[in-house]
Amino acid sequence: MQDNIIFVGTKPVMNYCLAVVTQFNSGAKEVIIKARGKSIVRAVDTAEIVTRQFLSDVVKKNVSISTDSVETDEGTTNVSSIEIILGH
Amino acid sequence: MQDNIIFVGTKPVMNYCLAVVTQFNSGAKEVIIKARGKSIVRAVDTAEIVTRQFLSDVVKKNVSISTDSVETDEGTTNVSSIEIILGH
Repeated sequence: MQDNIIFVGTKPVMNYCLAVVTQFNSGAKEVIIKARGKSIVRAVDTAEIVTRQFLSDVVKKNVSISTDSVETDEGTTNVSSIEIILGH
Repeated sequence: MQDNIIFVGTKPVMNYCLAVVTQFNSGAKEVIIKARGKSIVRAVDTAEIVTRQFLSDVVKKNVSISTDSVETDEGTTNVSSIEIILGH
């Protein structure tokens, strides 16, 4: 796992904002925010808050969506995912 | 309002998939899927289901995220939004 990938889950959005800001402050040129399913909205919130409020020199370089296959007890299900690349 | 914009809200995802497929079947070259806040995940699901299951010749041309200011009784709040452009 690369250091500059932030997986967004069910914690409060500010936790992920802090994680992204920390990455940039320790010298990262690019940070990738990833999320699946219901956490997608929190990934979008994180990217928006970081670029608008915390780091105005950081921009959204690319946003892509895809489908991941997830193995569960009842078989394989598909879940949507998002990947947001932030950078200078 | 343009005909080929689908606003995704709180209805079941399949309703929006049907709306997108209907647009393409009536000759649209491009369909724009928009959503705000918690509906963002349904917009992503809609785009993924349409491109993977219903219309394999339709591709995701662009995905962008932004922040909208919304007026409420208690003042202005910011809400994240997504715009997914599907096309041939």
